[in-house]
Amino acid sequence: EALSDTLAEEILRKAEKKAKELGIPMVLSVVDDGGCLKAMKRMDGAIKGSVAISRDKALTAVYFQTATENLGKETLPGASLYGLEQTHGGHVVTFAGGMPIYSKGRLLGALGVSGGTVEEDKAVCLAGLTSMKD
Amino acid sequence: EALSDTLAEEILRKAEKKAKELGIPMVLSVVDDGGCLKAMKRMDGAIKGSVAISRDKALTAVYFQTATENLGKETLPGASLYGLEQTHGGHVVTFAGGMPIYSKGRLLGALGVSGGTVEEDKAVCLAGLTSMKD
Amino acid sequence: EALSDTLAEEILRKAEKKAKELGIPMVLSVVDDGGCLKAMKRMDGAIKGSVAISRDKALTAVYFQTATENLGKETLPGASLYGLEQTHGGHVVTFAGGMPIYSKGRLLGALGVSGGTVEEDKAVCLAGLTSMKD
Amino acid sequence: EALSDTLAEEILRKAEKKAKELGIPMVLSVVDDGGCLKAMKRMDGAIKGSVAISRDKALTAVYFQTATENLGKETLPGASLYGLEQTHGGHVVTFAGGMPIYSKGRLLGALGVSGGTVEEDKAVCLAGLTSMKD
Repeated sequence: EALSDTLAEEILRKAEKKAKELGIPMVLSVVDDGGCLKAMKRMDGAIKGSVAISRDKALTAVYFQTATENLGKETLPGASLYGLEQTHGGHVVTFAGGMPIYSKGRLLGALGVSGGTVEEDKAVCLAGLTSMKD
Repeated sequence: EALSDTLAEEILRKAEKKAKELGIPMVLSVVDDGGCLKAMKRMDGAIKGSVAISRDKALTAVYFQTATENLGKETLPGASLYGLEQTHGGHVVTFAGGMPIYSKGRLLGALGVSGGTVEEDKAVCLAGLTSMKD
Repeated sequence: EALSDTLAEEILRKAEKKAKELGIPMVLSVVDDGGCLKAMKRMDGAIKGSVAISRDKALTAVYFQTATENLGKETLPGASLYGLEQTHGGHVVTFAGGMPIYSKGRLLGALGVSGGTVEEDKAVCLAGLTSMKD
Repeated sequence: EALSDTLAEEILRKAEKKAKELGIPMVLSVVDDGGCLKAMKRMDGAIKGSVAISRDKALTAVYFQTATENLGKETLPGASLYGLEQTHGGHVVTFAGGMPIYSKGRLLGALGVSGGTVEEDKAVCLAGLTSMKD
């Protein structure tokens, strides 16, 4: 089972619904398990700088198979992975808004969300993945 | 009037409908008048190499405000714009599949399509833009 | 079924055997269906410039799901895909030595070979994939 | 004496054996004394983000002829080499998992390991180099 159109659209729809509830225009990016963009939407009014960040959050979640915010503490100066944020040509994001998409324990890809505060981005990301059984 | 969610979705829907009629999975990218990605879809089964190309076709159509295939002859060795295809960090595409989106004479952005032959890509691109009055 | 260690090693072993028969040290790169490197070997004496080329041949075969030499004619000045060789940040290779790896009709990845003439590279590539049923 | 196929394979074999004992799929990269990739293996199940990191760990160990973790303290904000982690186009890694390969006091190349915790990566790296007399 790969990351299908149907699944990608469902994820984007749920995420966008949550973003609208919060009243914050966001950029939503879905990538597959190889980091290849599958679907992307920049909602009307979303800041342009969020395009790259939402994609990089999704890439980061695929690269390391973890929610992006989990990398924040570990990459602080002096922590065990200090410097990880420099790898992958600057495409690593270490704050909230990117989460891997699993189905039956298998990595299908990731969702990256950017446009609000990190808490808002995370809430939208979680909303996008509500029906996923990991 | 900017390139709205409504318009981007209409364009993607029409383009996808045409791609399905042709039986060819494609990648569809919509960018705004600054080249910033607005919406993107990689249809199930589309080759991964088409992701970058569809986006670059859209970028090219915005950069030069022309359908991408118009650059093909002009960039042949010895032609007047030979070398243009090297500019913009290698994001210029000189074959069919990218077209600017105009509304009432104003540039709103562009659509880039990749996945089939250049004729098929062009047909899908035209289908995506059918209702646009340029 | 993904591109496993077992399969990647079998492909490298067969390719290397052929390269040794030809008496030409080569670089052999296997990538998965997302273009992510799975295994790579630079045989003793192979030229260093072949490292990037073998990988890019494999990437190209995955991007476009075709043997790399099929892109040669189509990207000549005036041909329908003239300019395709400029895409993907200069990682497209349009001469022989890269081939997709299929199993039961599904793309698993690709093998890229560099170090000899294009005919030699192609022969080694074919030898690497002899047992694959596409 | 250069970094031969025989030596590279021995190093990869020992490192992989250790990774399997730890039960952690890893990516193993061997580069020569010029930083040119000699052999690379991504074990089944290893995260994809480890491909670039294992190679960059090996590059870093060659660039500075030291185990990568030795750069961690020196590149902390305020330390003497703060900023070094930004050099080389972002390919410097400052945590454990990369070690130079010496033979009779001469640099032959380096091994980079990624996929586990930094302690696990280091243990696998050490295991790969057990027979080296530096």
